[in-house]
This record gives sequence, structure tokens and C-alpha cells, in this order.
Amino acid sequence: MFIKEITIMSFENYFPLWNDLNTAQKKLISDNLITQHVKKGTIIHNGNMDCTGLLLIKSGQLRTYILSNEGREITLYRLFDMDMCLLSASCIMRSIQFEVTIEAEKDTDLWIIPAEIYKGIMKDSAPVANYTNELMATRFSDVMWLIEQIMWKSLDKRVASFLLEETSIEGTNELKITHETIANHLGSHREVITRMLRYFQVEGLVKLSRGKITILDSKRLETLQRS
Amino acid sequence: MFIKEITIMSFENYFPLWNDLNTAQKKLISDNLITQHVKKGTIIHNGNMDCTGLLLIKSGQLRTYILSNEGREITLYRLFDMDMCLLSASCIMRSIQFEVTIEAEKDTDLWIIPAEIYKGIMKDSAPVANYTNELMATRFSDVMWLIEQIMWKSLDKRVASFLLEETSIEGTNELKITHETIANHLGSHREVITRMLRYFQVEGLVKLSRGKITILDSKRLETLQRS
Repeated sequence: MFIKEITIMSFENYFPLWNDLNTAQKKLISDNLITQHVKKGTIIHNGNMDCTGLLLIKSGQLRTYILSNEGREITLYRLFDMDMCLLSASCIMRSIQFEVTIEAEKDTDLWIIPAEIYKGIMKDSAPVANYTNELMATRFSDVMWLIEQIMWKSLDKRVASFLLEETSIEGTNELKITHETIANHLGSHREVITRMLRYFQVEGLVKLSRGKITILDSKRLETLQRS
Repeated sequence: MFIKEITIMSFENYFPLWNDLNTAQKKLISDNLITQHVKKGTIIHNGNMDCTGLLLIKSGQLRTYILSNEGREITLYRLFDMDMCLLSASCIMRSIQFEVTIEAEKDTDLWIIPAEIYKGIMKDSAPVANYTNELMATRFSDVMWLIEQIMWKSLDKRVASFLLEETSIEGTNELKITHETIANHLGSHREVITRMLRYFQVEGLVKLSRGKITILDSKRLETLQRS
């Protein structure tokens, strides 16, 4: 699953809490730190796997999502360079009573702090526990934002937002993405997304071609998502 | 807003963390603890108010919900005797980037630990910070459960679940509740709930009368919510 080791040289520059650790804690983390290169498409964590540990992304992109019994998906949030992933170590808190799947959306270099190591430090360290609190509050806020989107926003606005987010992440107006993938991000169905995109095309907002969506009018997409 | 003071005598029996506090911390909390009686229907906290503090419910019932710009509501979770309410002190964590409203669903006796007092103790105490982590993870889990309900469950199942939950909370099969209130809990519209309840009535699951819903067949409601 993991194909290449990367250097741990700069972990301390990436880990925001490094200077709050004592010498023993620093040594414990350094001695147990795992560095990995993960290929795009790899499932890094899911509810049935062992507790993976805390992930710190050096470079790349992860997607956290939930799955229904019928195999439907909805993206909870995405993580980028320097982001920490807490839910891959959900076993460190007994009150986390839900399961997520985490996959690499791009080739990703990351560090893994094993769950038991982090848990042990967090138990005794107020700074680490408080940092973990802030981390969880951030993800909780992401999910609250999602609930508000699902509840109060119509799908056309959500598709417009998603397309704009993608052009921003990818730095291009030519998105290589399938309708199925968009449906999985938004918790919708492929057919529904296809119908919406065709409507967008008739309106001159996008141009559709095989496996590709070209954004033609991002200003009107922005107006739509805000309306 | 608050009409009666209650005794703080048994706070230490209710607060699960009491024995993990040192003498100074115990004194700080005792000296600043606010005890209140809140009438049913009172809004205890909303996004625009000052940071209320941590609430510990002695007896009663609170509802935490979010509001859309158009005034639509959806219940995130409810709190009962001995539950702690963290989001009423959301200012203690800068990463909590969402606003909730908390109202008393019944007359409620509660203690308030002022936010600044709790925040100060949490900053230095690993046990308090870790306890707060577990508290937030519990609410996060409640909200994840809600997302799964909204995304994957049809409304008939959600209404069935809600009616069964209410009969359990109230200890009776005769629910004094309006269709509007059910809509506000489930993030739906009154008309949609009325249509669903009439369908339930035709199926012999409930009997509708003015301001009242009588559960006639809870076994079939249970089957429905699980299907």
C-alpha cells in the first residue's frame, strides 16, 4: 500500500506543537514517527481498519467521507499541506462514535504519529490535549458547515461551489473529474449531477466533454453560489 | 429570564471531573458557580449572545439547534439530567466556527461554570482538557449521526424515530406536540410533516387530534424506522 519512505527531517517545522513538548515527549514521537508516501486513490483509513494514528500532511491531498450501507458517499472535508488528520486516530477518544473513510486524492507525503503514542502524551499534557481540542473543533466546524449546506442550500448552488473549489485547488478551469465523483463528494446521484451540469452548459456556465468540465463563466458561478 | 436560584449543594456529585481538580481549582469553580432555574421555552444561548459558559443540567431538558436565514430549524441534539453543555461556551475554543441556539424544552435547573473560569482551568489541566475533548467528541458524534439520518434515511423513517424518541422521553403514548414543532426538530416543513402524519394515521400507526398525536402501534413504528 505504501511505496516510498520520505525523510523526517522537517517534521518539527510542520508539527505546530513541537515546542510545547518536553524532551522525553519529543524523543518518544521522533522514535515512533512513521513517514510514508501514499499513492493517489489509496484508502488510508476506514472504520474497520486498526486505529491508524494522527496524520500530518507534508504535501498532497486527503478526502474524509462517510459511506452509506448502499455505497453512497458524501465528503466531510478535505485536508491539504500541513493539515493534521485526527479522525484517523479516533480510537484515542472513546466518545468518537462514528466511522469515516480517508483516501488520498493525490499522491501524498505524510507523517503518522501512532495512536497509542499520541494518546499517552495527550493524557498528561494540557497543551497537547488543548491542541487536540482545537483540531477536533475545526473538523466539527467543517461538518457543521456541511449540515448547513445540505439543509439550507439547493443543489445548484452546491454544485457551483464545488466547481469553484475545484478550480481553486487545481489551479485550472479545465477539471478532469467525472459526474460520479462530483455526486460522491456532494452525497448526490450521478444522474442528478449530470442533469445539473447539462443545465449549467445550456446557461453557458460550463462546457462538458468526456471526463472533463471546463468552467466558462466563474463570475456567474460565484453569483449563483451566493444567491 | 432566570427566575429562581437553586442550591449548589450537590454540584460535586454531578460534575464528573470534580475529583480530578486540585483545591484551588475546586475553590475557583465553587466561588464562581451560578445556579439557575430556567423556564420552559427560554432561549439560554444563541450565537449572538455573550459566551454563556458551560452548563451542567441538574434536571430538565435542553434542545440545541441551528437556524437558517429564513428561520428554518433543525435539532442537533437534546440534553437531559446530568448532561454537560459545551457549545454554550464555544468562545473557550477559537476553532468552533459555528453558532447554535439552545433553548429549555422543559423547566430546567442547571449550573453555569463561567466560560473564562473553565477556560483558565482547562489551559493548565490535562484532565480537564481531555474531559472537554470527550465532551466535544460526544456532540460531534451526535451531529455525525444526524448527517447520516439526513443523507441516507427517508423522512418517514425519521418521523417514526422522532415519535418513538418522544414517547420514550415523555413516558406516554399521547404526545402534546404540534406538526410545526416536529418540522423544526427534523429540519422539514409543517406541510410535509402533516402529510406524513396523515399517511401514518391512514396506516393505523397514530391518531391525530388538535395539538396531540397518539401512538397506536409503536411496534410497527419501530419496524418502519429500522427498515
